[in-house]
Amino acid sequence: MKRLLLPFFLVLLINISHAQKYQANWESIDSRPIPAWFEDVKFGIFIHWGVYSVPAWAPANADIGVYAKYAEWYGYRINDDSKAGKLFRDYHNEMYGEDFRYQDFAPRFKAQHWDPEQWADLFKRAGAKYVVLTSKHHEGFTLWPSPQSWNWNSVDIGPHRDICGDLSTAVKDAGLHMGFYYSLYEWYNPLYHNNLQKYVDDHMVPQMKDLVTSYEPDILWTDGEWDHPSEDWKSTEFLAWLYNESPVKNQICVNDRWGEETRSKHGGFYTTEYDLVHDGKKETIDKAWEECRGIGTSFGYNQMETVENYMSSEALIHLLIEKVAGGGNLLLDVGPTADGRIPVIQQQRLLDIGTWLETNGEAIYETRKWEDADKNDIANVYFTKKGKDLYVHCTQYPTSDLKIKGVKRKAEVSLLGYEDDVKYKKSRKTITITAPNLTPGNLTNTYAWVFKIENAL
Amino acid sequence: MKRLLLPFFLVLLINISHAQKYQANWESIDSRPIPAWFEDVKFGIFIHWGVYSVPAWAPANADIGVYAKYAEWYGYRINDDSKAGKLFRDYHNEMYGEDFRYQDFAPRFKAQHWDPEQWADLFKRAGAKYVVLTSKHHEGFTLWPSPQSWNWNSVDIGPHRDICGDLSTAVKDAGLHMGFYYSLYEWYNPLYHNNLQKYVDDHMVPQMKDLVTSYEPDILWTDGEWDHPSEDWKSTEFLAWLYNESPVKNQICVNDRWGEETRSKHGGFYTTEYDLVHDGKKETIDKAWEECRGIGTSFGYNQMETVENYMSSEALIHLLIEKVAGGGNLLLDVGPTADGRIPVIQQQRLLDIGTWLETNGEAIYETRKWEDADKNDIANVYFTKKGKDLYVHCTQYPTSDLKIKGVKRKAEVSLLGYEDDVKYKKSRKTITITAPNLTPGNLTNTYAWVFKIENAL
Amino acid sequence: MKRLLLPFFLVLLINISHAQKYQANWESIDSRPIPAWFEDVKFGIFIHWGVYSVPAWAPANADIGVYAKYAEWYGYRINDDSKAGKLFRDYHNEMYGEDFRYQDFAPRFKAQHWDPEQWADLFKRAGAKYVVLTSKHHEGFTLWPSPQSWNWNSVDIGPHRDICGDLSTAVKDAGLHMGFYYSLYEWYNPLYHNNLQKYVDDHMVPQMKDLVTSYEPDILWTDGEWDHPSEDWKSTEFLAWLYNESPVKNQICVNDRWGEETRSKHGGFYTTEYDLVHDGKKETIDKAWEECRGIGTSFGYNQMETVENYMSSEALIHLLIEKVAGGGNLLLDVGPTADGRIPVIQQQRLLDIGTWLETNGEAIYETRKWEDADKNDIANVYFTKKGKDLYVHCTQYPTSDLKIKGVKRKAEVSLLGYEDDVKYKKSRKTITITAPNLTPGNLTNTYAWVFKIENAL
Amino acid sequence: MKRLLLPFFLVLLINISHAQKYQANWESIDSRPIPAWFEDVKFGIFIHWGVYSVPAWAPANADIGVYAKYAEWYGYRINDDSKAGKLFRDYHNEMYGEDFRYQDFAPRFKAQHWDPEQWADLFKRAGAKYVVLTSKHHEGFTLWPSPQSWNWNSVDIGPHRDICGDLSTAVKDAGLHMGFYYSLYEWYNPLYHNNLQKYVDDHMVPQMKDLVTSYEPDILWTDGEWDHPSEDWKSTEFLAWLYNESPVKNQICVNDRWGEETRSKHGGFYTTEYDLVHDGKKETIDKAWEECRGIGTSFGYNQMETVENYMSSEALIHLLIEKVAGGGNLLLDVGPTADGRIPVIQQQRLLDIGTWLETNGEAIYETRKWEDADKNDIANVYFTKKGKDLYVHCTQYPTSDLKIKGVKRKAEVSLLGYEDDVKYKKSRKTITITAPNLTPGNLTNTYAWVFKIENAL
Repeated sequence: MKRLLLPFFLVLLINISHAQKYQANWESIDSRPIPAWFEDVKFGIFIHWGVYSVPAWAPANADIGVYAKYAEWYGYRINDDSKAGKLFRDYHNEMYGEDFRYQDFAPRFKAQHWDPEQWADLFKRAGAKYVVLTSKHHEGFTLWPSPQSWNWNSVDIGPHRDICGDLSTAVKDAGLHMGFYYSLYEWYNPLYHNNLQKYVDDHMVPQMKDLVTSYEPDILWTDGEWDHPSEDWKSTEFLAWLYNESPVKNQICVNDRWGEETRSKHGGFYTTEYDLVHDGKKETIDKAWEECRGIGTSFGYNQMETVENYMSSEALIHLLIEKVAGGGNLLLDVGPTADGRIPVIQQQRLLDIGTWLETNGEAIYETRKWEDADKNDIANVYFTKKGKDLYVHCTQYPTSDLKIKGVKRKAEVSLLGYEDDVKYKKSRKTITITAPNLTPGNLTNTYAWVFKIENAL
Repeated sequence: MKRLLLPFFLVLLINISHAQKYQANWESIDSRPIPAWFEDVKFGIFIHWGVYSVPAWAPANADIGVYAKYAEWYGYRINDDSKAGKLFRDYHNEMYGEDFRYQDFAPRFKAQHWDPEQWADLFKRAGAKYVVLTSKHHEGFTLWPSPQSWNWNSVDIGPHRDICGDLSTAVKDAGLHMGFYYSLYEWYNPLYHNNLQKYVDDHMVPQMKDLVTSYEPDILWTDGEWDHPSEDWKSTEFLAWLYNESPVKNQICVNDRWGEETRSKHGGFYTTEYDLVHDGKKETIDKAWEECRGIGTSFGYNQMETVENYMSSEALIHLLIEKVAGGGNLLLDVGPTADGRIPVIQQQRLLDIGTWLETNGEAIYETRKWEDADKNDIANVYFTKKGKDLYVHCTQYPTSDLKIKGVKRKAEVSLLGYEDDVKYKKSRKTITITAPNLTPGNLTNTYAWVFKIENAL
Repeated sequence: MKRLLLPFFLVLLINISHAQKYQANWESIDSRPIPAWFEDVKFGIFIHWGVYSVPAWAPANADIGVYAKYAEWYGYRINDDSKAGKLFRDYHNEMYGEDFRYQDFAPRFKAQHWDPEQWADLFKRAGAKYVVLTSKHHEGFTLWPSPQSWNWNSVDIGPHRDICGDLSTAVKDAGLHMGFYYSLYEWYNPLYHNNLQKYVDDHMVPQMKDLVTSYEPDILWTDGEWDHPSEDWKSTEFLAWLYNESPVKNQICVNDRWGEETRSKHGGFYTTEYDLVHDGKKETIDKAWEECRGIGTSFGYNQMETVENYMSSEALIHLLIEKVAGGGNLLLDVGPTADGRIPVIQQQRLLDIGTWLETNGEAIYETRKWEDADKNDIANVYFTKKGKDLYVHCTQYPTSDLKIKGVKRKAEVSLLGYEDDVKYKKSRKTITITAPNLTPGNLTNTYAWVFKIENAL
Repeated sequence: MKRLLLPFFLVLLINISHAQKYQANWESIDSRPIPAWFEDVKFGIFIHWGVYSVPAWAPANADIGVYAKYAEWYGYRINDDSKAGKLFRDYHNEMYGEDFRYQDFAPRFKAQHWDPEQWADLFKRAGAKYVVLTSKHHEGFTLWPSPQSWNWNSVDIGPHRDICGDLSTAVKDAGLHMGFYYSLYEWYNPLYHNNLQKYVDDHMVPQMKDLVTSYEPDILWTDGEWDHPSEDWKSTEFLAWLYNESPVKNQICVNDRWGEETRSKHGGFYTTEYDLVHDGKKETIDKAWEECRGIGTSFGYNQMETVENYMSSEALIHLLIEKVAGGGNLLLDVGPTADGRIPVIQQQRLLDIGTWLETNGEAIYETRKWEDADKNDIANVYFTKKGKDLYVHCTQYPTSDLKIKGVKRKAEVSLLGYEDDVKYKKSRKTITITAPNLTPGNLTNTYAWVFKIENAL
């Protein structure tokens, strides 16, 4: 409406200046604030699903390091000369024969039991607020009908479904944010190896733009950036388009994997992975960040994992608390089977987190790291804050009084999920809480307990 | 050696009398006491594994009654005119096509990941003391190389392994008892339908004797008996052989499924199934008995079950307590996948039971039903006894004092897994226990708590 | 109706004498004349089709003897320690892996393109007058729903069709005689190995009676008899039943493979196989006999055979002439593919024979061996007779005059398929024929030429 | 040698002019003479092998026109709304189910029995002098590891072999010319449909150049040109490169399928197909030309063809004679099975041609059309010439004298393969030949007979 009142040239000017808001250099790109929603949501579900979900195998218990246990790297490992590679190849040859290639798995990725609404419902009940799906992993197989990946995508082979599209719809309908993981590099695409610039211009950038314009995701989560500097990937050009022109320019969040030099430096939120990547610097991160990891030892489904390889529900809840208290998000991965089911043990873990969050979610969502947490270095105790309130997360139930420094006088204490009063004493900037006697079972779960200190800040 | 000194007719006499210990009639057969070990062990693992583990499907959430959700009945349901049958057949036709028969599944039952030692180890850690494997379900497919079932057994087709043999070895090596489920009838065997007596004489009895002599099991757990009276099955003749002559005549236990008229009447221990079968008469059972059921809604693996279909670890522990307090055993079923893995959610459930039993096993194993339990009808409280001791199982933590009647004066109370003293008061034949204040996490688990009253009886 | 008028003892007498027509001993069995139709038909089609049609492999060009090239023995060879066995096993392991058993082939025997009417039509156009199908080869797999072979027959697994039944109908509808090959022994049936008498009584004899009563064949062509004497197989008892009581007692023909001692001695027509078996005695056979062989080096389909391994149409026609001139029949084998097609090269061969028989069939069908043939030992010339007529078969066109001794004066000569007169001269008991000048292509085919000498005998 | 005497700038000039020998326009391209070898070789083998060899199906006997019976169009027909399309789709849905896509066939194209030396040997024995393999048919699947067709080529999926490379080597080693069929358009490649110029520049032209430089073929046989004018395909640019710069610039032959307007007009030799395409104008073709067709009704293997669908050996030899007499070549197609075998019936046909050519090849190879043939319009008689000699091909054996006009006086007549003299009379420019009396079988085959008239021209 207002535009009608403006002279035409001003309209033009506004549009132009708008289009120029972000330039294709890191200084400009990095100047864009991360959309606020991202730091509020705290808990997301990562999904690794692809051709690798067919063999679904990694030597979960071998002494080969964290990365070599990723089942989604199966296609790479069977061609890899490392110690881990030998384990994968021996298994592959025994099960499928030497003549069976990775590509031969694709028609067995059928997704015949896949129900995207059921997945979305599970994620919602887990208390997750966002979902990130591997639209394309390093294998190059796309989960949407990418014209750049003809006959190597989920519509042409295997599931014969637009997985990115169908899941986006279901996740958004459930009220969650939807995002896509996308691997910049590809292991075996000859175009990538023979002509990087052509690959970037004709394959990678068109695919990313296709994803963004077709499905309007809230997150674009890149990976596989390590082989080349961001300049070669033309990352800032793409991000300038994404921030200035794309249909999701306002809400989209990206991560920091845009070139060999960019992690923890450029892009959007920073990322850690199985606590690694950040070289121990995560305490000082002044930007939104996110830890990703599997429930077990792999992102893609590894059928050989036993219950020993899975983190317990308790450990997962502690992990979530630790990350959120540190200012980060947790992007917890599920690895569906090739037929489209989320293994029941993973359902169990997610729902246990969800149950805990039902009671304690207010101490997680929309909170921020408490800058004075360092002054209160108490074993098994973590802090989050929201507005004037402080949340004290105890991953073991306190057997002696808790003294919290840096709390205002007018503060009042309660225990989330507990209806009775909690005893506490206040002195100058210190509050001393006495944990009530709880009998087993009178709190809905027993994995962690949160004292809420209202008006503490 | 001594025999040489005996006159020949005496030797003959001894052998005859020996052979005649049990006669082929129910009065004689029923007179044999159930070997003591069976009532001591309390907790066993049932395994349903067969060709049905390939489709591994049942409509877990349909309104079709308990039995129709058994995935191991897939081969029957797809030929069944019932409402449930339609659901199975529709699924089958969509997934495999109308031309695909049940027998076509057999080569896909590969057991390629099967590790019997790993299974046995899991069962042991679950606290189970015995294992019962479906040596042959109603489909007729045998898990050992039965000459009577040529080309329809696990050595000739599919796994190409002697599953009964390999699992027996592993289970026995782990110190557990091993038993076999065996279905008397078969759905589709033409010999069964055309000539019952020939089937019994040439097929069924030879198979059971083969099982017994080849693998020397501790339990023979029959089923599929309902179509004919035990006379037609020649059950007492077989049992006379089993009790008099077989290599396991001393330790073998059998159940009560030997003919359409025998359940809860004849044979060895009585059986219930998903609490059914005994027509509510189980309180008055004066014989060893055993409840069997799956963790979810099926015995055979049903890939469509979600976490909602599985009993929680808490519910399973309460179930165990309830059955043992009632004088029974619990035979809890796992349904392995066709490739030989026990679903991780089932592993989780078993290990949770095992963890509880580590602390509380003394209140389960070797105990017996307390005949005075009825005088103490307290909600969420169950009793077991062993020698002079009484165990009080609380499936919810008591929030008020527990008054137990019928306890001797010299009794002393402790809480299993809790090192401190427990407060209690004694009056004439009544003891009043005050549950200690426990903080969350200072007992290893929270599913049920057992007060031990030493010298109570 | 008439029986009512007869005194009871006469009825009894009639029944007894009827029942006793043939006794269960070779003297009596051998006294039954072979039904006349068998010696009139001359040319039949053998069909080897079974689970072996799936691998369909033998080393056609290896130096391993005639029998070791039979592809229908695949299931035996892969377990065989011979030189040939190694070739089969190496191939099997490379193509299917060591864990793949012979039984695993059964579901791949689908017969999805099978059209029995099309087969029958082809056989008729080939000029064949009868068909013999492997109802059960040594593998034990039956091509009809035999209750004795549950889950190892063509209705339960693979084709899911009653092949014996469907082909019988089609063949009979086409006006041809239908017969069944049946293997007495089985390679791997444990019943056969563990208890021969039980196998014979409960498995083999019931199967043969089932075949006979269900499908009423004109031929029962047994094989696999060599391991035991006919007494053990109870052959004469069965044959007495077949000749006295079976629904086909009048028309049925059997061969001579009824026990290790019976070939060329007992039973019905004698058999040779790739010219072997009769130890060179076939000239003196005074009984109906039949040569069987494949078009190539195998009975069952061998996909590795090239055109070099197949006999040419010319050679096959010469073979037919040679056998018929010797008083025998030719049972020429086709090996269909697992999907139910007769390889086109085999179609071509059959139709070439059919084309030749269109013109020359009168010199084949219903003829008999000429007893004076030996007095006329002329290269590439064979004789058959029918009534007063003599047929002179030339497998090369005569370039000089043909002198035939033992021919009556009133004889007249013509060339089948040639309308003009043929020149000939007669002397006492000798006729001298001058072959006409033929230009290429003025006889419908060029594989063999037949002079007919009417009133020669 | 001479170059050394030239000043440097003249050398340069020559090289430049050499590089510019052919310009990218049809006038220039068409000015290049077809390399002489092509018109000498006369008989080649076409091979259609690809993913379509897996379903290997077309309704050979339906009333749907010639083109709709091509089994290599399976992937198109199942998506086609025509009457033929319905037949293909009904078959597909019944056999594979609606969810089974064309791409799902690729892993079943295994070529496990493929022996390129055996193929080359067969083609040589057939008398063929050149071979043309479908390097890429309209399906887009390449039989060499094309980087432009990642994961949709025979090295990445299915055979896992470089078929173009391995067959080139074998064919060249056998002394034959090797060529490649290449389809310009692709049915389903999104790049083709979305951006033709990009497809041409980045996909098609690079693939053709890759083929040419990697395997140095003697023929590039394009097809699928009909959707666009040659300008859009950039055909003349490519051909200028091929003729000026490629490593095969001297020997390479191409056909006339370079754009919707080019058939029978531009490029190299002209092509007919099942006698079609040239609109009956083939008598007046003044350029080298070639007829291609299958032995049956399809180029790709159609497993449903019976012997009735195959041309006889006689008809094929007559076809060869007819085409060569008309100045053309015959490119006869074989359709191998997905496992790498040439059906035996096709082997038989090829070797029958080879046998005929052993005797009569001199009347075929290196001959040309006789310009005076029209003056001798005799039924079943065809002419070829070579140098001064004339060959008279009789597809039926002459039963009366042959009068040939236009023959010189000094001419002498013989019958190929016949050692005796042939009677003939000469008058002015006419020679009268009396065919000798042949008895059946004294010429090696009977399909066609060739009189050679030496010094006739």
